[in-house]
Amino acid sequence: MRRFYAPNVAPGPHSLGADEARHLGQVLRARPGDAVELADGRGAVFPAEVVSIGKREALLHVGVPTCFPSPTPELTLWVAPTKHTDRFEWFLEKACECGVTRIQPIWTARSERRVEKRERWQRTLAEAMKQSRRAWLPELAPAVSLDAALSSLEPAEGEGPWLGLAHCPVPEHPNWVRQSIQSALPQQRDALIAIGPEGDFTSEEIESFGSAGFTPVTFGEHRLRTETAALFAVQAFHILNHP
Amino acid sequence: MRRFYAPNVAPGPHSLGADEARHLGQVLRARPGDAVELADGRGAVFPAEVVSIGKREALLHVGVPTCFPSPTPELTLWVAPTKHTDRFEWFLEKACECGVTRIQPIWTARSERRVEKRERWQRTLAEAMKQSRRAWLPELAPAVSLDAALSSLEPAEGEGPWLGLAHCPVPEHPNWVRQSIQSALPQQRDALIAIGPEGDFTSEEIESFGSAGFTPVTFGEHRLRTETAALFAVQAFHILNHP
Repeated sequence: MRRFYAPNVAPGPHSLGADEARHLGQVLRARPGDAVELADGRGAVFPAEVVSIGKREALLHVGVPTCFPSPTPELTLWVAPTKHTDRFEWFLEKACECGVTRIQPIWTARSERRVEKRERWQRTLAEAMKQSRRAWLPELAPAVSLDAALSSLEPAEGEGPWLGLAHCPVPEHPNWVRQSIQSALPQQRDALIAIGPEGDFTSEEIESFGSAGFTPVTFGEHRLRTETAALFAVQAFHILNHP
Repeated sequence: MRRFYAPNVAPGPHSLGADEARHLGQVLRARPGDAVELADGRGAVFPAEVVSIGKREALLHVGVPTCFPSPTPELTLWVAPTKHTDRFEWFLEKACECGVTRIQPIWTARSERRVEKRERWQRTLAEAMKQSRRAWLPELAPAVSLDAALSSLEPAEGEGPWLGLAHCPVPEHPNWVRQSIQSALPQQRDALIAIGPEGDFTSEEIESFGSAGFTPVTFGEHRLRTETAALFAVQAFHILNHP
């Protein structure tokens, strides 16, 4: 069943805009009477029937949704957009497929080309949500500086998320200990994992993370690109929480 | 330390060809006396010193290598090249970073555009090997049909690799049971995992895998693209074998 993303859908008549109407009519060759699904990205998936298709609009009749609970535990990733946006977009697509909850882009001391392509990144996530048949769209927070992100961490009432920090070995501090993510990550608990940017965090940044209560972790002895490490975190979180 | 791939290097004088000489001189701005490393892709990493750099050649003096054992256990992936080669190349890069041993491209009943870009794929793997500072280059087997791949499986003397098959639910056989990769994969044992292509294996193909002794596994309830599933297998193998 073909699925569309429709953030503001409700039962009753619903109109798809020009882009999706064109996709439905010209690419999928849908006809009046065909069944499709609409996902609102917040857990509700609606059955719908095509009423009419034109070049600029498609009219659907929408039924009563099935609601899916939000996946738990929740994973938030802090990750610096890469210099080449295609590597970051690749990561967004894969992270959505593999079930990330929230992505916080951060600007770090070594971030180059601080260009936030927010609309494009949102579209990448929505496409991946539809393609992987998820009911929940990952949240994409506006990019902020690392300092602002650290300041925004609220003292948790009760047990907050587990805080993990993935970075490379630091030449200035060769004896800083990093556990493997497999041994460090607690099961069935929300987590927030920060991923070293291209060129890695500076040792001052790593110290700030330490003061904020982050546990340093490693994903193995080899050097992973930023987007590979970020996806590794998502997949490790999935594997360790769904035994 | 900058690392180069040099499959036939030995201690003594060594000449880098035009491409790498240009990279060394114009991109990295190396000068005579600078130190670099050469990896032969089979576990040996050689220290080397730049003797001279020209436009068409760079001359190095190569020292005695450090040898790294091949990573164990070994993971072989059978995976169908995707319709768009960039998705497959992305997978090759990431799989190398994350430690795959061997990749066997296969043509399946639903494979479209059967174009084997072998040289390009080899270059992608070599680049990822250098970038992630690995000493071993993953083996890229020539593409074969699924039938040929299955026929080539030899009856193992003693315990052969564990055989896993990742595919989507099959409408014709809704009750076929698939275990999660986390619960099915034995630890510290070589494995061969076959990944469903775009459009998935046909139910006849899945039956052939079953006759050959493959265990059906799933990577979760959501639909993963072929290249995402293939990388998920590599990362699950890493996490489950390096606790």
